[in-house]
Formats: sequence, C-alpha cells, structure tokens
Amino acid sequence: MSLTQIGENAKQACHKTRKLTMTEKNDLLKKMAYALVENKENLITENKKDLDAAEKNGMSKSLVDRLMLNEKRILDMADGLLKVAKLDDPVGQVLSMKKMENGLTIGQKRVPLGVIGIIYEARPNVTSDAAGLCFKAGNVVILRGGKEAIHSNTCIVTIFKETLAPYGLEHTIQLIEDTSRETAREMMRMNQYIDVLIPRGGAGLIQSVIENSTVPVIETGVGNCHIFVDESANLENATEIIINAKTQRPSVCNACETFLVHEAIAAKYLPSICRRLQEKEVEIRGDEKSNQIIKNIKLATEEDWATEFGDYIIALKIVKDIDEAIAHITKYSTQHSEAIITENYTNSQRFLDEIDAAAVYVNASTRFTDGMEFGLGAEIGISTQKLHARGPMGLKELTTTKYIIYGTGQIRN
Amino acid sequence: MSLTQIGENAKQACHKTRKLTMTEKNDLLKKMAYALVENKENLITENKKDLDAAEKNGMSKSLVDRLMLNEKRILDMADGLLKVAKLDDPVGQVLSMKKMENGLTIGQKRVPLGVIGIIYEARPNVTSDAAGLCFKAGNVVILRGGKEAIHSNTCIVTIFKETLAPYGLEHTIQLIEDTSRETAREMMRMNQYIDVLIPRGGAGLIQSVIENSTVPVIETGVGNCHIFVDESANLENATEIIINAKTQRPSVCNACETFLVHEAIAAKYLPSICRRLQEKEVEIRGDEKSNQIIKNIKLATEEDWATEFGDYIIALKIVKDIDEAIAHITKYSTQHSEAIITENYTNSQRFLDEIDAAAVYVNASTRFTDGMEFGLGAEIGISTQKLHARGPMGLKELTTTKYIIYGTGQIRN
Repeated sequence: MSLTQIGENAKQACHKTRKLTMTEKNDLLKKMAYALVENKENLITENKKDLDAAEKNGMSKSLVDRLMLNEKRILDMADGLLKVAKLDDPVGQVLSMKKMENGLTIGQKRVPLGVIGIIYEARPNVTSDAAGLCFKAGNVVILRGGKEAIHSNTCIVTIFKETLAPYGLEHTIQLIEDTSRETAREMMRMNQYIDVLIPRGGAGLIQSVIENSTVPVIETGVGNCHIFVDESANLENATEIIINAKTQRPSVCNACETFLVHEAIAAKYLPSICRRLQEKEVEIRGDEKSNQIIKNIKLATEEDWATEFGDYIIALKIVKDIDEAIAHITKYSTQHSEAIITENYTNSQRFLDEIDAAAVYVNASTRFTDGMEFGLGAEIGISTQKLHARGPMGLKELTTTKYIIYGTGQIRN
Repeated sequence: MSLTQIGENAKQACHKTRKLTMTEKNDLLKKMAYALVENKENLITENKKDLDAAEKNGMSKSLVDRLMLNEKRILDMADGLLKVAKLDDPVGQVLSMKKMENGLTIGQKRVPLGVIGIIYEARPNVTSDAAGLCFKAGNVVILRGGKEAIHSNTCIVTIFKETLAPYGLEHTIQLIEDTSRETAREMMRMNQYIDVLIPRGGAGLIQSVIENSTVPVIETGVGNCHIFVDESANLENATEIIINAKTQRPSVCNACETFLVHEAIAAKYLPSICRRLQEKEVEIRGDEKSNQIIKNIKLATEEDWATEFGDYIIALKIVKDIDEAIAHITKYSTQHSEAIITENYTNSQRFLDEIDAAAVYVNASTRFTDGMEFGLGAEIGISTQKLHARGPMGLKELTTTKYIIYGTGQIRN
C-alpha cells in the first residue's frame, strides 16, 4: 500500500475513531489483548523469522534479546493493553468553561490529537504499547518500526486489524511495511495526514527525525543526567541515590551520568562513594581535583561531561559551590532529569528554580522520571522538548484541546 | 553581530530572566512603555525612512498603512505593554502536586519556555507586542522582522535594550538586523539556542518556516472558516452572523469564507441572505444548485472551496443535511474556526463533537476567535496546529512546565 493511501485511510478512520465511546474503546482494547494471547503461537513463529535474520546479520546479544518474543512477553503485552483499558479516558474532559460579558459561553475541551506517527526501532512490544495508548486517547496511529522486527510487527498489527475490522475500524492502526529510509523520510513530510510524529529509539533516530520532519515532532529520550552532592548533604542518602541512579539500570535515559561534589566535603566523601561505585564495577572519570584525592580513577575529558554513557561509567567533578554546579549542569544537561542532594533549604529551592529540565529532584534518584512512577499509569515516551509535553507522556499528552463556544446569535463589534 | 553570538547572548540571558520576580518584570514593562513614548519623535523619524523606502519600491497602500507609525500608534504600543504588565503572571503556578506512595512529592510547575524566536513581516507593532508578551512570561526573545520595517524595528528594540541594560538584561530582547532569507533559514536551524519559533504573517512565510525549521514551530494563522445554516436555524441570527463573519473585517483569519445552507431552507433563505451580502458588495460564488435559485451570482470552482479569500468574496454550497455539511468542512477546513447555526439540539452537539477545529461555534460569529475576546488579555497569535497550543495563544501558551520532586532519600526498586 502506498504511503498516500495509508494517510488517506488514517484521515478517514479519524472521523470514526473520534466518535467511539469510552466503553467501546475499552472493550476493543480488551479484545485486542485477548487476540494477542489467542495468536501467540503464530506470533512466536513470525518472531522466529526476525530472530533468524538477526542471527544471520550478526546482531548483538542485547539487541536480539530486545527483539525476542516468548509466551511471557506476549502475555505482558496483552496485560499492558488491559491496563490501558482501565486508565481514565482524558478525551471529552472540559478543562474550563466560562460565561463572557456578551453572553457567549466559552469552554476548552480535551480531544484526540488525530493521526499520530510513531517511528521506532527493534522492539516489537512498542508496536502493541503505542497502538494501545494512541487508540485509548481516540487517535489513529501509523506505525513505522525497524526492519529487524518486521515479521513480528506485521503479525501484531494484523492481529489488531482483524480485531477491529468487524467494527469498521481496521485503519485505526496501520503499519508501514516498507522499512526503507526513503519511506521513513516521506512519512516525516506527510503534514497533510499526520498531526504529530513521535520517534522512539536512539539518539541517531531522533536526530534524523528532527532534521527531516516537517510534521510537528515530540522529541524524546536523550538524558545526560546529573546529581549534585551539596556541602550539607546527608551522605548516606547521597550514596544510595548515586548508586541507584547509576547502576540500577545504566542503559536508560534517566540514569545518572555525572555526579558533582561540593569541594568542602570532597576529601571526606569521595573515598567512600568511589569505593562503592567501584564495587559495582562502575568506571569513574574524574576532573583533576578528584584525581588528586582518589588515585585509581581515570581523568575525565571534555567529551565525558557531554556524554550519555548508558553504561557502567560515571563522570565526577568537584565544584566550589552551588553556582558552579548549576553552571556546569546548565552547560551540559540535556534537560531530562537533574538532582541535588542537600539539607540546605535555600539551595534546594534555588536548584528547583534555576535548573531548566523536565524533572528536577531534591534528595531522590533521577531514575523516578517515568510515567508509571509519576502516576500517569502508562508512558508513550519521555519528552525532552518544551512544547506540548515535557517529561513522561501519558494519555493526556496524546490529546489536544478545542474551544467550544455556545452562542445565542452573538456578532462581533 | 553573528547569529551564533545572538544565540549565545540569548542563552546567557535566560538564566537572568528566569530569576526576575513578577514585580520586577511588571516594573520593567512599564519602563519600556514610557521609553517608547519618550522616544516617539525619534521613532517617527526612523519609521519615515521605512516609509520612504516603501514608496520608492511601490509598496501597496494597505501595506504602507500597516507599516506607518504615528503618535497614536506609538501610544497604542505603549498602552499594550502597560496592559501586559497588568495581566496575571502564569510563571510559577503549580498545576498539580501530589504525594506518592513511596513518600515522593511530585508537582508540575509552569516555567518560561526559554528562548522564543519570532519571524514576522512588515508590522512594527509586532516588535513591541511580541517582545512584551515574551518578556512577561519570563522568556528571552529573538525577533526577525521584515526588511520593510527594519529602521522602525531597530529603533524599537534599541529603546527596549537601553531600558533593560542598567539591569543587565539587554540581551533579553534581540533583533536580527540582517533581513536576508539566508539568515532567516539559519535562524530556523538554531536548535541549540531557540526553544520555539513562532511565525506571524502570510501563508507563504508560515509555509517556509514549516518547510525549513528544525526548531519546533507553532503554526499560526491560516483560516478557511465555514458557517453552516441548518434547517432549523433562526434565520435572522444566521444572516447577522454571516454578514458579521464575512464583512466586519474580511482580511483576518477568523473571517468566514464559505457558507453552507441546508437544502430544505435554501429556496426560502438564499434570496434574502444573498441580497444582504450583495448590498455589502460581497461577491458570491455558489454551487450549481444555488445558481439555479439565485441568478446573479458566480459559479464556484473546486479551488474556491479551498481558498481563504481574505476579501469581499464568499463561497456558497447547498447541502443535503448535516452529514454533508460536516463532510465538506472536514475536507476543506484549515481547522481554525467553524460555526453551525441551528436550533436543533442533536445537530449542535454533533457539530461541536465531530468538527475538528481550534474553535467550534454554535450560533455565533467565527470572528470571536481572538485572545482578547476569549478573555486571555492578549494574544501572540492563533495556533492552527494541535501541539502545545490550539486557538488563541496568550501568556500561558508562552510557558512550559517542569516536574519538581521533593524526596527524602528515595531510590527506585
């Protein structure tokens, strides 16, 4: 099917999807979940084709693991859809309504965004998760996954389409089966058909979408997160938080990449925190001052300050005071998640006010930046841009608003 | 000054501007207003240079009028700044705050967007209005106006910079004095420095920004607005509303461009509404059916349905029912402002629900889509996109949010 045809189908589907009631949407989400379970053997067979191709192409072990579907993972995907069915529906919520002097009643109502494009890489669970969230918020979705997962993705979307077809909703979830770069580029310029594009994947993918898309984009994901241990910090807390933020899951975007320590406590604190990190096999790359205190660490390069390691590596810098900490973070931060560990009231407030990031923490691990942890119930990604959504995005962020105006014949003077 | 230098200045200024209190911002807005008035003769002299150049280049009368500054218009600009000073400051508002099960307190706070780029055409009042609104919301602004107004714009921005310089805030408002297309293109790719770009002007300018910008854009302005006169409409209201929406100010984006009439009332209603429109010298371009009823109107072309005339021209179509009306509007609408005139409850609700536009009206003129009329107190433009802001944008739309998290040592399991 041509991209234009997919776009036309999506536009047509919008009108139907917008009219679904909450009950209808939730019932269909449940049917989609059951259909995944019923077709699990078929899905495992199709996934096997992707795995075989991956092996032939020498894909790394960790990527193959992300690609792999087994019974448990299929049940998890189905469970995800059931959970989404249970979430509050943001559509139709009236955010404000007021009577104006001229008698007009003006309200602002939450409505679906329309057509959402998702461009992602090798994880087939994104197909199910993203489709479920977009559907629940009354949207039509056009998915474009990586070629590595094409058999799995096609199978999942076919299962959904077969579930939705009896209700005339088969175009609500569509997959672009042509995984070429040219087709992805073309998709990024389908302003006529797509209201918003959400890339999910590595920095390369996201950068390519930002560079090439004329469709509005929600940028997700990159996180060069910092933790600043202030002079007054509770050092036990500081240590637990740094260990957690670095080692609990180093590959994710809310993991800590650099920690900054106030110079007044550096000599006292660094030996213990560095030992704890090294026990967890974390490589430490420190500035010159910290290298004078701790002998068995590496010297950090300028590049290290700007790097999202995504691995068991952490950068370390000793700072004169909170001003130097804020200046360093402002310079290198990707504005994802930043934390201060302090018992000083003024410094806690200054950090919250002056650090420009999606999530700013006092005395907690940066790892909490997540839709589930923030109580959104689900997450389509973490926005690191400032337009529309910032931080974890749930169902609400998959909607827009419209003004609704009730008149009695008013004209403008 | 190079664009990179302007970008660096803006980034630096952000940190200072973010820390200003409401009182400080309002005092500075007042000072900026007074400075405009004090320098009015200088400003009129500089504006005269633009007017002379415009005359030499044979600029149209209406464009010259938009460009022209006189004492009254300068006082209006100053008055605009004083009004902005009086508006509620959205910055710092906490939208939600809740205690989570693990003891974390998570809040969402309204904060400035950061650096806003405005690309606009020949109206020098935009320089003052946009700078005032961006400043009030705690933002830094980079302005890039048209070459036709370069002397006026430079003078206005110089007045503001001189007002702000004693407080170290001279880079809060900057003007790109090089008005070449190449520089505008370069500005559209300054993702490192600019958080959002708002184009204000004609369809050509907006299209060029959408095509070329990698910085997130808020699309403004184009309005192909419809009014549907349903079978049950109060026809007196319908007539007043159509006349108002078409003729009160035909050049603006919320003016009506097509009206649709239910076939059951067409024969009765068209003679009177067409006569009234023709009395106002509106050219009517109707479909075949309406041409059979009214003899002295033109035949509409396919192109007419899709055209924002911005002039004393209106298209007319007879429709079978509300379904055909909704289908026509859905096909040709630019999703700006759409209205139904009806006394039928079900049809009013269907129109509000099913029409996908920034503002949907029952029994009122589309001309009300405006920041002042909607009670926002001011307007930076009218968004016709779905991300971030939809419809009239006031101060709130010039902000973003950040999550603030108060912990007591929490780590993630």
